[in-house]
Amino acid sequence: MKLYFAPLACSMATRAALYEAGATATFVEVDTRTKRTAGGDDYLRVHPVGLVPVLDAGDGTLLFENAAILQYVADRFPEARLAPADPMGRVRLGQWLSFISAELHRGLFGVLLDREAPEAVHTYAIARGTSRLDYLNAHLSGREFLLDAFSVADAYLATILGWSVVTTVNLKKWPAVSAYLEHMRERPSMARALAEEMPMYIAEQSRKRAAESAVVQATPPS
Amino acid sequence: MKLYFAPLACSMATRAALYEAGATATFVEVDTRTKRTAGGDDYLRVHPVGLVPVLDAGDGTLLFENAAILQYVADRFPEARLAPADPMGRVRLGQWLSFISAELHRGLFGVLLDREAPEAVHTYAIARGTSRLDYLNAHLSGREFLLDAFSVADAYLATILGWSVVTTVNLKKWPAVSAYLEHMRERPSMARALAEEMPMYIAEQSRKRAAESAVVQATPPS
Repeated sequence: MKLYFAPLACSMATRAALYEAGATATFVEVDTRTKRTAGGDDYLRVHPVGLVPVLDAGDGTLLFENAAILQYVADRFPEARLAPADPMGRVRLGQWLSFISAELHRGLFGVLLDREAPEAVHTYAIARGTSRLDYLNAHLSGREFLLDAFSVADAYLATILGWSVVTTVNLKKWPAVSAYLEHMRERPSMARALAEEMPMYIAEQSRKRAAESAVVQATPPS
Repeated sequence: MKLYFAPLACSMATRAALYEAGATATFVEVDTRTKRTAGGDDYLRVHPVGLVPVLDAGDGTLLFENAAILQYVADRFPEARLAPADPMGRVRLGQWLSFISAELHRGLFGVLLDREAPEAVHTYAIARGTSRLDYLNAHLSGREFLLDAFSVADAYLATILGWSVVTTVNLKKWPAVSAYLEHMRERPSMARALAEEMPMYIAEQSRKRAAESAVVQATPPS
């Protein structure tokens, strides 16, 4: 298997899930700005919109969308128990993956991380997102995981919530969410994924700043 | 079963899926502005954030999130063949449901339908959404359905694309998407759902305008 990822992007959830499963996989870093892999390949040939993660299932089959990939990993390694085994538990897993993806990732934190989005877009996302965090906080109060045990939904949620530190959202306002994130970060798979991707993220940010600075210097003063 | 819905909202996809399956269900209209059901009940007691759809599975179990509910309906009525039967087909179904939910619903059309969102938010959503529609158009070229046969993902996609008529997105720029939507609307389940919910939508919009006008009249001139 081969995971196309960007440092600290939502693809980190799949990395953590693969570690949970003890799976053998290679990891290909993607620069989501230039849409090139670390090896210089055109990433738009892998994913036409340039989104991560993409998982190559091993036979060249390319799987898109984090929520679908995470469930695929859970099904491929059932002994790792990354998803509930009962049908209603699977429905609940799908429910949380969908909520995290649409409401927290795309609707809130993904927008806040986009530095090119105007301030009005950030304000709008925060106004909408508050009720979602209230709901999440109520659900997580007195719970260790989203479901009865750790699942790929926790890997996804912890990854997204981790982004809050570089946004104006202070998770301390939602104590159960904040405590959950701290707890999740102590989990070996998540701690390892974070420790590995953090230096890559810092290097990526440095490259971005250098590229932006080069553009500014090449523009004649008006 | 009982479906909590708002007229022409994404819950229409679940209604169409229930019609496809010949399922017996009751439908409870929700006013997403006042967060009350048509019977006057507090909808926040059903869904803490007030989102539709919610499906009461029949025993009081409440299911959230359209993508999860659609897969539940497909699994509950396997003879209706609303989902692929093979494991990789199921992964692809999950992939499309996730893409529609995050990228087209929450990321694009859901934002454009929000009249309270500032213009900058609309502009941002359209700029991001164009590449998603390009990708969808390429996928649908020469295809009748998202997968090899009709699935709940088609019910969801057709519902979301139908919203374009009240936005500035002209689907004619994406001919395969446009042709797909026309074709989907001829499908009896979709045609019936649309015919039933359109009058309810018009009535809901009239109530909203009346409520807004009442607020304006009650505000003393400054």
